Amino acid sequence: MSRRPRVAFAMDADAHAAAFPPAVLAELRSFADIVHERPLGDLGSAHAQQILASTDILITGWGTPRITPSTVAAASALRAIVHSAGTVRLFLDPEVFDLGIRVTSCAGANAVPVAEYAFATTVLGLKRANRFVAQLRETHGIRNPSSMPPIGAYGVTVGVIGASRVGREMLRMLQALDATILLSDPYVTAEEAAGLGAALVGLDELCRRSDVVSIHAPLTDETVRMIGERELSLMRDGTILINTARGALVDTEALTAELVAGRLDAYLDVVDPEPLPADSPLYTLPNVTLTPHIAGALGNEIARLGEMAVAETARFAADGTFDHEVRPADFAILA
Amino acid sequence: MSRRPRVAFAMDADAHAAAFPPAVLAELRSFADIVHERPLGDLGSAHAQQILASTDILITGWGTPRITPSTVAAASALRAIVHSAGTVRLFLDPEVFDLGIRVTSCAGANAVPVAEYAFATTVLGLKRANRFVAQLRETHGIRNPSSMPPIGAYGVTVGVIGASRVGREMLRMLQALDATILLSDPYVTAEEAAGLGAALVGLDELCRRSDVVSIHAPLTDETVRMIGERELSLMRDGTILINTARGALVDTEALTAELVAGRLDAYLDVVDPEPLPADSPLYTLPNVTLTPHIAGALGNEIARLGEMAVAETARFAADGTFDHEVRPADFAILA
Repeated sequence: MSRRPRVAFAMDADAHAAAFPPAVLAELRSFADIVHERPLGDLGSAHAQQILASTDILITGWGTPRITPSTVAAASALRAIVHSAGTVRLFLDPEVFDLGIRVTSCAGANAVPVAEYAFATTVLGLKRANRFVAQLRETHGIRNPSSMPPIGAYGVTVGVIGASRVGREMLRMLQALDATILLSDPYVTAEEAAGLGAALVGLDELCRRSDVVSIHAPLTDETVRMIGERELSLMRDGTILINTARGALVDTEALTAELVAGRLDAYLDVVDPEPLPADSPLYTLPNVTLTPHIAGALGNEIARLGEMAVAETARFAADGTFDHEVRPADFAILA
Repeated sequence: MSRRPRVAFAMDADAHAAAFPPAVLAELRSFADIVHERPLGDLGSAHAQQILASTDILITGWGTPRITPSTVAAASALRAIVHSAGTVRLFLDPEVFDLGIRVTSCAGANAVPVAEYAFATTVLGLKRANRFVAQLRETHGIRNPSSMPPIGAYGVTVGVIGASRVGREMLRMLQALDATILLSDPYVTAEEAAGLGAALVGLDELCRRSDVVSIHAPLTDETVRMIGERELSLMRDGTILINTARGALVDTEALTAELVAGRLDAYLDVVDPEPLPADSPLYTLPNVTLTPHIAGALGNEIARLGEMAVAETARFAADGTFDHEVRPADFAILA
């Protein structure tokens, strides 16, 4: 752009405060004009429409209202949407692309904490750490590994489902272990997988061979309940299932049956439905570690999203491109 | 050695079975003669003395009886002790060095799982994962981060106490995080620390600045209770203390007081005494994760020790050297 871009925000006030602390806003102000300090919540109001009319780049985030051609009809100068969070599919009508509006997302910055979380869970899961925590709380001092499934991270096989941004970051971190890494992803070649440090296998083989199965696939019509009764039955006793992606990738009923039977361990940061009904046995089983959707950016990690949004905005202002542009064709396979 | 070395084992039968599965024994047999298949438990017996008399290299491990000049008096051919576990200080009388017997240890192989464990704990600790687990179990579905200490691994400061083998491995893994890494170690220069990816600071500064304090110092007269009331008081509210080293490095009473007050989080794999008395509040506090000394090699990780012991034995047989020789001077500062 030949002049300083005019920027506005559309997201929750809390999300805005966490992603754009003063230092991040100062960086944005160094090259852009902020049209309106407070983030817009309802794009349909006359006030919002007036702000949008003089906005070149709209920064969205958690809690952004749905954006369609009609909500941005008055935004005649709008050239780009910079999403300071993960997936744009949940709020963005794909017809907005037809208006020539360019889109980027900070899914890459959200991928980092998710992969860190899945990696850490892999290590502690293989140590059966939470089983030992529960055992120690009961026995007050006795360590009895003989009651556990196989223990340890040496020479094991870790299966990654999906070479998504998170999946790739997870594959990168897994290289630190003395382990065999498998990848299942229908859009990746064996060569690409090898480049990511993994052996490409089909989903069934991955389920059969892995000591840990970590899900990093997007939720699409193709992938919904991809881990069902059949896939779970292929897993060996003691296999650890990690889900930090989307709850509906797994058939909750089938998984619950396996977990109640004690045949598998699970670390579930996402579930279906979310939250689970209050009487779900998953809240209390010793082989299940349930967390409330915390793997993604939380706390200080949210500022990483704002920093990336500002970097993408700067890049677009400088030369009209994005490092992480989202294109219409990506909608089918992106998370 | 000009001929195949004669090797015997002295350790617990269980430790021997875990460290030396058939594939590892086959590798040993490819270049050495195993004088006696079963590991010796009591070196003083006539049977053991007879075996020692024709042993060139003694492979020790968990449960090795104390070795002094008198227990190996009959071992006229004994040239080396290869310890297939971590510290040799607990069983080896330093006067054995005076007999010209060379010593190596597989502490390096034991360091790997400990560092993996401390790293994983750093990530999940910063996410306050176990606090969320407890919260979810109580609320059955509500996520309330506002009740937690600061959350997240972005831009935090991690303090490593001790550039031991584990400490160095931990420093290597920590480079994967977007974090500032501090190191406190009286035997390391600022330059060496920088080479390890850390800023060298004093212990007090480390305690004051760190969001996570991970202890990797050896237990010596100098370091016993090095984390006491004063050091704990320097730590900010919500600081996470990780101890995978030795329980007595921390003043249990002072730590318990801080944890009961809810001021710090702790992940304690070792404690003092071990196990803690049955009425210790540390068993049940929501800000404490207590595990029963599992960070070191366990399960499949024990074979890594056997493999390293065989590699050291092969090296000594080939050219009379070790990659990881333990020298008398190391006794004062090694774990």
